[in-house]
Amino acid sequence: MSDPFFQPVSGFDLPRFAGVPSFMRLPHVPRDHPRIGEVEIGLIGVPWDAGTTNRPGPRHGPRQLRDFSTMIRAINPATGIAPFEQANCADLGDVPPNPADLQDSLRRISEFYSDVTARGITPLTAGGDHLCSLPVLRGIARPDAPLGMIHFDAHTDLFESYFGGFQYTHGTPFRRAIEEGLLDPKRVVQIGIRGTMYDGEDIEWGEAQGVRIIRIEEFFDRGISDVMAEARRIVGDQPTYCSFDIDFVDPAYAPGTGTPEIGGPTSFQAQQVIRELSGVNLVGADLVEVSPPFDQSGGTAWLGVSLMFELLCILAEARNRRN
Amino acid sequence: MSDPFFQPVSGFDLPRFAGVPSFMRLPHVPRDHPRIGEVEIGLIGVPWDAGTTNRPGPRHGPRQLRDFSTMIRAINPATGIAPFEQANCADLGDVPPNPADLQDSLRRISEFYSDVTARGITPLTAGGDHLCSLPVLRGIARPDAPLGMIHFDAHTDLFESYFGGFQYTHGTPFRRAIEEGLLDPKRVVQIGIRGTMYDGEDIEWGEAQGVRIIRIEEFFDRGISDVMAEARRIVGDQPTYCSFDIDFVDPAYAPGTGTPEIGGPTSFQAQQVIRELSGVNLVGADLVEVSPPFDQSGGTAWLGVSLMFELLCILAEARNRRN
Amino acid sequence: MSDPFFQPVSGFDLPRFAGVPSFMRLPHVPRDHPRIGEVEIGLIGVPWDAGTTNRPGPRHGPRQLRDFSTMIRAINPATGIAPFEQANCADLGDVPPNPADLQDSLRRISEFYSDVTARGITPLTAGGDHLCSLPVLRGIARPDAPLGMIHFDAHTDLFESYFGGFQYTHGTPFRRAIEEGLLDPKRVVQIGIRGTMYDGEDIEWGEAQGVRIIRIEEFFDRGISDVMAEARRIVGDQPTYCSFDIDFVDPAYAPGTGTPEIGGPTSFQAQQVIRELSGVNLVGADLVEVSPPFDQSGGTAWLGVSLMFELLCILAEARNRRN
Amino acid sequence: MSDPFFQPVSGFDLPRFAGVPSFMRLPHVPRDHPRIGEVEIGLIGVPWDAGTTNRPGPRHGPRQLRDFSTMIRAINPATGIAPFEQANCADLGDVPPNPADLQDSLRRISEFYSDVTARGITPLTAGGDHLCSLPVLRGIARPDAPLGMIHFDAHTDLFESYFGGFQYTHGTPFRRAIEEGLLDPKRVVQIGIRGTMYDGEDIEWGEAQGVRIIRIEEFFDRGISDVMAEARRIVGDQPTYCSFDIDFVDPAYAPGTGTPEIGGPTSFQAQQVIRELSGVNLVGADLVEVSPPFDQSGGTAWLGVSLMFELLCILAEARNRRN
Amino acid sequence: MSDPFFQPVSGFDLPRFAGVPSFMRLPHVPRDHPRIGEVEIGLIGVPWDAGTTNRPGPRHGPRQLRDFSTMIRAINPATGIAPFEQANCADLGDVPPNPADLQDSLRRISEFYSDVTARGITPLTAGGDHLCSLPVLRGIARPDAPLGMIHFDAHTDLFESYFGGFQYTHGTPFRRAIEEGLLDPKRVVQIGIRGTMYDGEDIEWGEAQGVRIIRIEEFFDRGISDVMAEARRIVGDQPTYCSFDIDFVDPAYAPGTGTPEIGGPTSFQAQQVIRELSGVNLVGADLVEVSPPFDQSGGTAWLGVSLMFELLCILAEARNRRN
Amino acid sequence: MSDPFFQPVSGFDLPRFAGVPSFMRLPHVPRDHPRIGEVEIGLIGVPWDAGTTNRPGPRHGPRQLRDFSTMIRAINPATGIAPFEQANCADLGDVPPNPADLQDSLRRISEFYSDVTARGITPLTAGGDHLCSLPVLRGIARPDAPLGMIHFDAHTDLFESYFGGFQYTHGTPFRRAIEEGLLDPKRVVQIGIRGTMYDGEDIEWGEAQGVRIIRIEEFFDRGISDVMAEARRIVGDQPTYCSFDIDFVDPAYAPGTGTPEIGGPTSFQAQQVIRELSGVNLVGADLVEVSPPFDQSGGTAWLGVSLMFELLCILAEARNRRN
Repeated sequence: MSDPFFQPVSGFDLPRFAGVPSFMRLPHVPRDHPRIGEVEIGLIGVPWDAGTTNRPGPRHGPRQLRDFSTMIRAINPATGIAPFEQANCADLGDVPPNPADLQDSLRRISEFYSDVTARGITPLTAGGDHLCSLPVLRGIARPDAPLGMIHFDAHTDLFESYFGGFQYTHGTPFRRAIEEGLLDPKRVVQIGIRGTMYDGEDIEWGEAQGVRIIRIEEFFDRGISDVMAEARRIVGDQPTYCSFDIDFVDPAYAPGTGTPEIGGPTSFQAQQVIRELSGVNLVGADLVEVSPPFDQSGGTAWLGVSLMFELLCILAEARNRRN
Repeated sequence: MSDPFFQPVSGFDLPRFAGVPSFMRLPHVPRDHPRIGEVEIGLIGVPWDAGTTNRPGPRHGPRQLRDFSTMIRAINPATGIAPFEQANCADLGDVPPNPADLQDSLRRISEFYSDVTARGITPLTAGGDHLCSLPVLRGIARPDAPLGMIHFDAHTDLFESYFGGFQYTHGTPFRRAIEEGLLDPKRVVQIGIRGTMYDGEDIEWGEAQGVRIIRIEEFFDRGISDVMAEARRIVGDQPTYCSFDIDFVDPAYAPGTGTPEIGGPTSFQAQQVIRELSGVNLVGADLVEVSPPFDQSGGTAWLGVSLMFELLCILAEARNRRN
Repeated sequence: MSDPFFQPVSGFDLPRFAGVPSFMRLPHVPRDHPRIGEVEIGLIGVPWDAGTTNRPGPRHGPRQLRDFSTMIRAINPATGIAPFEQANCADLGDVPPNPADLQDSLRRISEFYSDVTARGITPLTAGGDHLCSLPVLRGIARPDAPLGMIHFDAHTDLFESYFGGFQYTHGTPFRRAIEEGLLDPKRVVQIGIRGTMYDGEDIEWGEAQGVRIIRIEEFFDRGISDVMAEARRIVGDQPTYCSFDIDFVDPAYAPGTGTPEIGGPTSFQAQQVIRELSGVNLVGADLVEVSPPFDQSGGTAWLGVSLMFELLCILAEARNRRN
Repeated sequence: MSDPFFQPVSGFDLPRFAGVPSFMRLPHVPRDHPRIGEVEIGLIGVPWDAGTTNRPGPRHGPRQLRDFSTMIRAINPATGIAPFEQANCADLGDVPPNPADLQDSLRRISEFYSDVTARGITPLTAGGDHLCSLPVLRGIARPDAPLGMIHFDAHTDLFESYFGGFQYTHGTPFRRAIEEGLLDPKRVVQIGIRGTMYDGEDIEWGEAQGVRIIRIEEFFDRGISDVMAEARRIVGDQPTYCSFDIDFVDPAYAPGTGTPEIGGPTSFQAQQVIRELSGVNLVGADLVEVSPPFDQSGGTAWLGVSLMFELLCILAEARNRRN
Repeated sequence: MSDPFFQPVSGFDLPRFAGVPSFMRLPHVPRDHPRIGEVEIGLIGVPWDAGTTNRPGPRHGPRQLRDFSTMIRAINPATGIAPFEQANCADLGDVPPNPADLQDSLRRISEFYSDVTARGITPLTAGGDHLCSLPVLRGIARPDAPLGMIHFDAHTDLFESYFGGFQYTHGTPFRRAIEEGLLDPKRVVQIGIRGTMYDGEDIEWGEAQGVRIIRIEEFFDRGISDVMAEARRIVGDQPTYCSFDIDFVDPAYAPGTGTPEIGGPTSFQAQQVIRELSGVNLVGADLVEVSPPFDQSGGTAWLGVSLMFELLCILAEARNRRN
Repeated sequence: MSDPFFQPVSGFDLPRFAGVPSFMRLPHVPRDHPRIGEVEIGLIGVPWDAGTTNRPGPRHGPRQLRDFSTMIRAINPATGIAPFEQANCADLGDVPPNPADLQDSLRRISEFYSDVTARGITPLTAGGDHLCSLPVLRGIARPDAPLGMIHFDAHTDLFESYFGGFQYTHGTPFRRAIEEGLLDPKRVVQIGIRGTMYDGEDIEWGEAQGVRIIRIEEFFDRGISDVMAEARRIVGDQPTYCSFDIDFVDPAYAPGTGTPEIGGPTSFQAQQVIRELSGVNLVGADLVEVSPPFDQSGGTAWLGVSLMFELLCILAEARNRRN
């Protein structure tokens, strides 16, 4: 049973529009807080989008995700998991990026996650653009044990470089992560890939490394159960990361993102694929690419935090299984 | 055959953007109008949202629903029903609420519906938030004969109270209606329930009373035909009410509402479930929780009036069957 | 292999937000350009909506479609088609309409398309409202050989007239086109028809001519493969046009249009139906009724250009097969 | 004292968001209503924008102006005028335009206004684009007595023609009205003219006829009192019309219009210039060019109806002075 | 010199979009925080709008004001005041309202402010609608010493009642406050009053009590210096409250509010009137009626917090003068 | 007299919503175009915002400015200047930035402007954020002759660094430009400065170098004529640059920008200050910080291009005077 300090404020007691908004109305426990040592799962914002090659905005993601997260309640209606009962959850605040220096920001983020990992805290990240996943992985992957990854996205993010050789963008994080030994490509599966293609080099490279790429047509043809069973087989029992780009979901559901691609899954299918992660040895997860300036109704942020809650349920379950 | 007076203005004659907007371009027949006695089905606005616990706005629903309703034509393309031919339909105007006094408003609304019921008019209501359904039911349920109800919603609205014991909110109407004997809980079915849960007490209480609660996972698993066949069995031949909360539909289709929950049905599925009400002894219906301030494109209002038209077709058919 | 001049600018070289926006970042080759003679497929804007009976705006469609089209890349991920490799594609600019004189505009548009056709260019049109399709057909149909047509839409656009006998609106183009012998009604199939009906006269007339009308319920019941196989049989091997009204797609995906109808297909289904045109002898296509003033997020324009890319792939393939 | 039937509904009794919206919550008295004979001032919508050369939308003006007009109360705070006490005011509904036939629409509108004038009703019009003023003037100007006009606008609307000779657009109404003898150019004053110019031919023609054109620089330099005193001198005691294009006001105040021009007056200055019409023999007025699709917040509609109330006060006063 | 703990986070160190948003990036010090005893000026949210008679939304004000307040820096550019140097400022969080029970909410708010006052903290409130000012005044006014008030608003908020006798709305707080002896009407001045009037009873009653009401015409005629000098004379040296309704400012600057009235001051004039409070013995202030659902761009919230900063400067100066 | 090739397309001939949008409908003459040698004034987009420290978006500025610029006509109504008659004007397209590498982008931009300057073309730039001005100045300032500058802005942009020493942001360009000898600080005047301040170091440094900083209070107190006369004296007859940050204007007029500050000038005042540049030896100008993601109505872009037209008139006049 979780400590009362770590229980979110209930909407029965304080209206959801009231109060300083922390993630899911959890206590705000920055790293210098006296109770940081008791935190088991940390919700962390990474307000940074310097890797964005077209429409910017995910730097504003954590704040809007926090705002909408005040509508989250306590129990998962489909699985019955009550994550705040299962683990001490807290909002660790935002990593302070340097919006003007990409390399400095990469360093700041990976140091934050190294520290969090050293404290034994399982991180659930709210991006930021997808380049954020690279320094997060640098912070949490043990050098001798590359992680597996289940990656939901419309894009592979396995490109070599942009704009004449520039290697750090939101289209390249997982190529870097594989090159750096943070991910074991044979335990990486990418699901939902679609959208017009440049030249296919990203897919060729990924498949050559052993990455399993499941395009949207295969996803719809085979169905969620079958695809996700394969995904679970690929990552196996070893520590695994989950990266969820909101553009996995169709833009009708998630307009507030920089690189939408039509022809994607519904919000229900997005919930289903995460629920199918049950049993995976998940050691961290992120939800990235929510871009408030392109999300006029806030619906993308609401979808994003709803999916963060689903990820949180899986993380809590996995952590308890490991303990 | 309906009286020409009760025919809506055609878009072939007057462009849809022209004219003072009444529901579906029907004649505006307030209760002091000389022809009120001939009305068979009354479309009524209840512009009131004092039960809203988070994001307000449904008070503006009737006006925006009227505005978009001018795009409705005469015949249901799937069922062939022409409701304006089957019954004298009219816009009865809005119930005047008291935005500053909840109990006074409850009283005003129930009196309006008692009067309408006494005139033999079948009401089709445009909310307002879901608390509106309580005084509507008070106005139309005969004391000795509680109604059945088919209820489409993401939420049960069966909560006991909020904010330290307050019993009248848009999360409590059907608990009150069952307690007051307005609804027969054994003839109540709720469809589409989802979203993170507080503690599940609402569901426990409802099921203990005999309410049949069909969560979204069961809904998608079994399919519409099977679920709706069960719903029809539950309510049987006796008088039945239909309450349709627009948040039943996924927020991609219905962003303009106060408590959206991801993972819901499509607009086509929303049409299908209403069409499956064919044969039910429907004596009234409502469409609630359209919140224009959160509906920037007006798409939620358009969805709402399109579903009101589907409900109208069922009401017209049921009324003629009773006659 | 296509000429380098006709290759679009890559997002790897120039960021997608930069540059004067032409369709899909292709060269802008107006009809007085020295290289017009080499163009094989011409992307053409028709910024005109004088046929609109309710909510105006498609006159602004071509510009917003161009803007969003800068996010299109080179290869179709599902079919592998690389249209810019298969044919010399170019942006021919916009037909100059006369917003104040409907008949003059009809004349200007048909002359433009006659000229384009005379040059041997296959046109892919960005509307404009659906009345645009009439003068396009006047420009490309050979008098002795009426075209077949596969028409995706929520509406038949087969009405006789509006507002007391007015014959040229966006609800009448295909009645006129059949009357004028531009289309062979027995080789016309309409898919996705739905929405409340006036009196059904449009459908009766169409079916009497031999038009095959597939309503949305049949579409969903039979599935895309079956329906599209029938569509291909209907149009056969002879020259065929494809007209795609964005309101074919559900308004959750395409809110930015004048006459949305709920209960429509998803964006993925929209892609699928076009991909099923593979093998059809397509000689032209249009994408109409994108209305920027009602498309606040731009999502409808993005859907529109994504579908234009799908149409372009089919056109390129068909053209090469004919050569 | 005005008849109680003609009093608007008070916001103290019925909340402003409730009820079928008529102009200023006045009774809806179409021309076939039994009490039409008692109406002294008629508020009339002309939902028509076929003269628009760029961004469309004013066809939706009357509906949104009605909606926001429910926030108008009874008394002018600056002048003390209570127009609903001074004259029987009513909402006469909308003139039915033909959106597909410009000349037919011109005819319909002028006939409506001829009839209203014949009944002795003073018209206050909500447009519609500025071409609407031409048929209104055709309906109300007596052939032997051209009217004077005080015209607030960023543009002269005195152009000869567009698009190769087309004479009826929202840029030409007053050239036509002067040519047709509906206006006496020597009693016409235009105030607020600004914006980049084509070639100045409109201004040259107007000044050659005797029209007094006061550009915005002169307006700001001399001040409102001085300019409006001159305007009153120009129109004198004879019957005068007032045409108010919402683009007179700066786009920060009135973004929802088709042809905004920066550098305009404030909303307070707009109120002041109308209040300075006190004493003018005003026989009709219009407020045009409010375009809801470009007015996301509704602020332009609210400005528009607030100015319509100011015009109404002047019309009521002038009518009583004539009686 | 203020304690470093009470210094806001600088935008030079942490980007303004990062971090859990508290008012002006000050420390969040709820009443059970160990350092509450050191707070001198408390910024408090009152997320409550149950008094709203038309368009709701100010309940969401505090959250959006906090969000935009992260763009506030340290020093007033016009006066040189550095409020965070002059006093220990902190964000005390939000008063928990009961959205479903108006009287309970009034009680909760007044208790909160009584407690804050007892601790010697000067409150700066972010509303909420204008009814919030009543319980705030109940909490801070000493029974034997009614406060003076400088009130900026388009409306007097001195009405007797609405909807058949209901006495607690956002149109009545100051009538109640005067009746309850919380305000000394002879030391109350209202500035900016405008907008169409019901019957003028509010103004008659207020003036009969001795309230000085300065309408917008007088405000513009006399100029800010002269009007504010009179305002300072009226309130004198005794403790005075300042209530600032954002609808004082013209809706072009502040569209996000429920009851906008055209013809108001600019944002610069709004700054000027607050700066002219220098020397007034201000013991508390509020900024109310910012309504995020009607503030799509966020500009009204930004204006609101910018004016809160101006009020904070005056409060800090006045507090130091009292010490 | 300008060459017909360089005349913009007239709205009398082609509706303003039609055609591929270039700046002011001028010919698109990239640097490899055969007629580049005849261009006298080049309109150039710099779609780059890597210097933005808070809300991003100006990278999208050039495209939206081009779109709205199609509403610009030929003649300045206040000054009579017809810039397209006075000089060969053309749209040179956009400088291709590298969104992922700030230093590389600085280099690309300065090289573009060096080349343009070498061709004798006077540049008028559409940003982009304010950091763009630095590489533009690097491209156009002759090493031995630092430029004067008239700078309209709410901020000095004279900061030393951000985020722990980072020297290249949109808050630092003119400190760098002065340090690099591109600007002569004694011939630099900044007008409109306002907004809460960090610590005033920027102002101290600037004034120590000799920069004349005119804050908004002084601007309003003295009036435009007096302030601009001083500005003209400061820059004298030598070559001078004009940099116009759209946030100079009040956010009611220019909401679409990243760092709005309330209390600014109107759009008319913005026009006036540019018109007062008549006679200044202007050799280049920019309009920066228009941020389309925060400019929902497009009004900021429209204001921006309207002011670019005013700048163009001054540039054309100055160029002709130099010739």
